[in-house]
Amino acid sequence: MSVPDEVRAARAYLSRVAEPPAEALVSFVERFGPVEAAELVRCGEVPGPVAALTRARRGVDRTEPDLRAAEGFGARLLVPEDDDWPTEAFRACALSGQPHLAAPVALWVRGPVRLARATERSVAIVGARAATGYGSHVAADLAHGVAGLGCTVVSGAAHGIDGAAHRGTLAASGVTVAVLAGGLDRPYPAGHARLLAHIAEQGLVVSEYPPGSVPGRHRFLVRNRIIAALAAGTVVVEAGWRSGARRTASDAELLGRPVMAVPGPVTSAMSVGCHRLLREPGTIAVTRAEEVVEAIGRIGTDLSLPLPGMPAPRPTDRLSAVALRVHEALPWRDAREVGVLSVESGLPVDLVRAVLPELARLGLVEDVGAGWRRASACDRR
Amino acid sequence: MSVPDEVRAARAYLSRVAEPPAEALVSFVERFGPVEAAELVRCGEVPGPVAALTRARRGVDRTEPDLRAAEGFGARLLVPEDDDWPTEAFRACALSGQPHLAAPVALWVRGPVRLARATERSVAIVGARAATGYGSHVAADLAHGVAGLGCTVVSGAAHGIDGAAHRGTLAASGVTVAVLAGGLDRPYPAGHARLLAHIAEQGLVVSEYPPGSVPGRHRFLVRNRIIAALAAGTVVVEAGWRSGARRTASDAELLGRPVMAVPGPVTSAMSVGCHRLLREPGTIAVTRAEEVVEAIGRIGTDLSLPLPGMPAPRPTDRLSAVALRVHEALPWRDAREVGVLSVESGLPVDLVRAVLPELARLGLVEDVGAGWRRASACDRR
Repeated sequence: MSVPDEVRAARAYLSRVAEPPAEALVSFVERFGPVEAAELVRCGEVPGPVAALTRARRGVDRTEPDLRAAEGFGARLLVPEDDDWPTEAFRACALSGQPHLAAPVALWVRGPVRLARATERSVAIVGARAATGYGSHVAADLAHGVAGLGCTVVSGAAHGIDGAAHRGTLAASGVTVAVLAGGLDRPYPAGHARLLAHIAEQGLVVSEYPPGSVPGRHRFLVRNRIIAALAAGTVVVEAGWRSGARRTASDAELLGRPVMAVPGPVTSAMSVGCHRLLREPGTIAVTRAEEVVEAIGRIGTDLSLPLPGMPAPRPTDRLSAVALRVHEALPWRDAREVGVLSVESGLPVDLVRAVLPELARLGLVEDVGAGWRRASACDRR
Repeated sequence: MSVPDEVRAARAYLSRVAEPPAEALVSFVERFGPVEAAELVRCGEVPGPVAALTRARRGVDRTEPDLRAAEGFGARLLVPEDDDWPTEAFRACALSGQPHLAAPVALWVRGPVRLARATERSVAIVGARAATGYGSHVAADLAHGVAGLGCTVVSGAAHGIDGAAHRGTLAASGVTVAVLAGGLDRPYPAGHARLLAHIAEQGLVVSEYPPGSVPGRHRFLVRNRIIAALAAGTVVVEAGWRSGARRTASDAELLGRPVMAVPGPVTSAMSVGCHRLLREPGTIAVTRAEEVVEAIGRIGTDLSLPLPGMPAPRPTDRLSAVALRVHEALPWRDAREVGVLSVESGLPVDLVRAVLPELARLGLVEDVGAGWRRASACDRR
């Protein structure tokens, strides 16, 4: 289903007329539709809050040049009327009741991926620009892992953790989405121009800012809400005491999405922000991709698998403390009477009697007439 | 108030007659008093559960040799009838309703410190024997820090984290309590004999096991409940996937005491147990001594202080997200009208108008007639 040109043109105008987040404008557009809303904004026939947002720029109409420029560098304007607009992802913006989390009016996008599809199952991996080797390694590793589990990785293309997350995803031939704080023709940081070009080939580079927009300081914080909204959960890998990544985490929390943090050495200044998050209620400590996917996934389908390289579970792992003590009171070879087991384990004889059949059912002990002993299966663990 | 010799002698007998934890015996002694209880145990005139616990050893009376031996190596038997018995600390044992957390019948102690006093404000710092350099450093540092804040450090004298915690406390001239899983005349591990001697000079070495008792595998787990009970909270510094320290943490939880874990690199096998704990609800991530003391302390007196070496708080740190955006929309020098601020900040003009007086009250902005600008104080931050 194709979107009428006038709708896309109206959204292009609206994407430049107000500095995001523009909650009053988004609501206004929802009420009147983009074409009529754009017309009303142009004439200034709008309620106070919309007027305040649009007064400064309503006379600036760069719709045609913007759309042409985007086409020129291989981008397009994605609008809520498009099939691949991530409607679900942005629904939480309105539901949050937070004006500063307002959905974008439209998104300039570049890349072969359909955004709605890519964000059905996605994780934001964000963190410090001044990442340590540890942080970069973990970010790349986590991204590689979640990509391997079928998740899209969303991040901000910054130096440090963001870049490592994008690269880790690309290395796994996964889908990654980079959300910029300026126009798509202004790759930022400049040193990531090649990385962004690579992402635009295999994933998607997106921005709510029209071509030519400069990524100002304020816009990085505002942009973070898009990262949080496009992901089913946000992982902070490394963050200093004051960090934009913590803002992304806070946006995610307000959007009702799980916030995860990766622990690091307490001696590292770059983990201070993560530990600060971990001390807040609700933050989930994650150490590997399976735990990330578990946090965003449905229970039962994505429950984290045993850690690779972790010792196989022992049959005694799930015993109650009491059963374990009875089991430990049994010698490796000889049998023991219940009374002796009681003394050895320090447990009342009734309790020992009650526990032994349970241990026998689990194949851990056997009754040899003269007493109980460990079942031979235990020796083979 | 001195305790009659016959009471202490009865407790000495009882401390050997049953393998701890001996919940049925503890209840029995509470009902009949130690002297009569000991007599009844000797004759075998006891209910089934007590009989099961005491049958094997009730004929073994080493009371006099045990008390003499203890005196010989500078130890004494502390009993619940003593003024310096940590009644408060052990109250949680009965309240927990967990037989495996039963209080000890008595404690063999060595050192100049009064246990009740020392445990009024105390933290258990425990962890892996196979600690990394990172873990040992953090354990010693945390112990040094909490000791400096007036806390006793309780641990198990094992290699690795335990030893580092004791040493860190001693280095701060603090009080440390080592809880052993065997007789006080059997310093374990042997390599820590000198450390234990040092602790006995400056703190306290304690054990519920009578002289000569061998520290068996089962006893280390049982001993952990004493560590947990003697401390107002337990910190796990490093722990593998399966770890005795996690058992101490689980005991602490059952005793209603806060459980804390120190994050570490997710790439370290020795932090896996800590991260596992951090993924359980209720575990508090701690990175420095103040946070540990905050967790066990009363709110208002021990709230954690600013991190040393951390940037001083900025006046803007406590602003709401909206106020921060208005503040950021103000240029450093020139003044701006409310309408322009609204466009720049992307916030409705009414909201900007509402926020500015609040910012002015905080001394962050000033009204200069032609508009608003940042107050000069901000430049001096």
